[in-house]
Amino acid sequence: MFDYIRDGAAIYRQSFAIIRAESDLSGIPADIEKLAVRVIHACGMPDIVTDLVWSEGAGAIGRKALASGAPVFCDARMVAEGITRARLPADNPVICTLQDPQVPAMAAASGQTRSAAAVELWQERLAGAVVVIGNAPTALFRLLELLQDGAPRPALVLGFAVGFVGAAESKAALAANRLGIPYVVVNGRRGGSAMAAAAVNALATEVE
Amino acid sequence: MFDYIRDGAAIYRQSFAIIRAESDLSGIPADIEKLAVRVIHACGMPDIVTDLVWSEGAGAIGRKALASGAPVFCDARMVAEGITRARLPADNPVICTLQDPQVPAMAAASGQTRSAAAVELWQERLAGAVVVIGNAPTALFRLLELLQDGAPRPALVLGFAVGFVGAAESKAALAANRLGIPYVVVNGRRGGSAMAAAAVNALATEVE
Repeated sequence: MFDYIRDGAAIYRQSFAIIRAESDLSGIPADIEKLAVRVIHACGMPDIVTDLVWSEGAGAIGRKALASGAPVFCDARMVAEGITRARLPADNPVICTLQDPQVPAMAAASGQTRSAAAVELWQERLAGAVVVIGNAPTALFRLLELLQDGAPRPALVLGFAVGFVGAAESKAALAANRLGIPYVVVNGRRGGSAMAAAAVNALATEVE
Repeated sequence: MFDYIRDGAAIYRQSFAIIRAESDLSGIPADIEKLAVRVIHACGMPDIVTDLVWSEGAGAIGRKALASGAPVFCDARMVAEGITRARLPADNPVICTLQDPQVPAMAAASGQTRSAAAVELWQERLAGAVVVIGNAPTALFRLLELLQDGAPRPALVLGFAVGFVGAAESKAALAANRLGIPYVVVNGRRGGSAMAAAAVNALATEVE
């Protein structure tokens, strides 16, 4: 037998207590404190908060959008899978179009990634939506291009693209915020679907 | 318009080139070099290799198991979602039992997490399987307990549990290797479903 905590609720409580004890959350606004804690929880790295940037009121805006039934658009199925449906306040649709049968041909025709092409299918329902990018920098870049070209404005964009080519740049472009879209971003190369889903789960309910 | 690389294959090539240029892979055996590169790719952190530990020949053993049709058992659906089916060499089954209808009652009856209870459903097909733990320390602990009690031996266990309570300890217990099960582990709190799926994807084919 191994000596470990077996009770799920106790594990959550202790995890969040350790995170709050070890992390410097002093610069984090109240409306994204739980988001910061859950993002740390998802990656095991308290220092991730040093890379967290946001527009004012982004957390409150995201909560309000979800409460009013906003759909959640995800760039990757791993992100969609990580969103706890039971936490969502209004049975919000969680939508990932990456496997849409139109996407491969759209990507080939336009010489872009499938992740970027998939974003083009969001436009009809993008107004007031919560967008969460947990994987592909090209999806975030494409979203910004569409918005620049006049696509309907989402309520909030959560930018957690990960990796070595375009991730830092795409998130910096979102945070440069030329379009005035509310955002939360983890700067740099770090990110990923687990952090992205955690951010949505934190905004979905106040329950920890 | 934003200036970014739009072609998916070019992004992959450049990503892997940056990773190999920036990471110290000198201590990594040839049979897990691509696994190390893909794990770095999944998290954006070249220094993750400093936490990577393995038993001798683990990569070769994993490739052989997959080539011979071994099932892949995952603790979390995000992990299963991240495994690229088209890369698998033998149409290997990818199995996650977390949503099995028996699991909630099993967990409640035994006072353990659903993640741990779900592992008990693996035993019938565990012999020679590839196990990948990308989320729950309790799943890894429970697996080790079952193995200690004589459960069928998997070919390889990939230990990428993440977080603050039990993650480091469960992976250390696997790497202490009292049972002689081949393993690859990322030590410490870091880990997660993206790294875990990346490890499987790396062993599935030599194609980058």
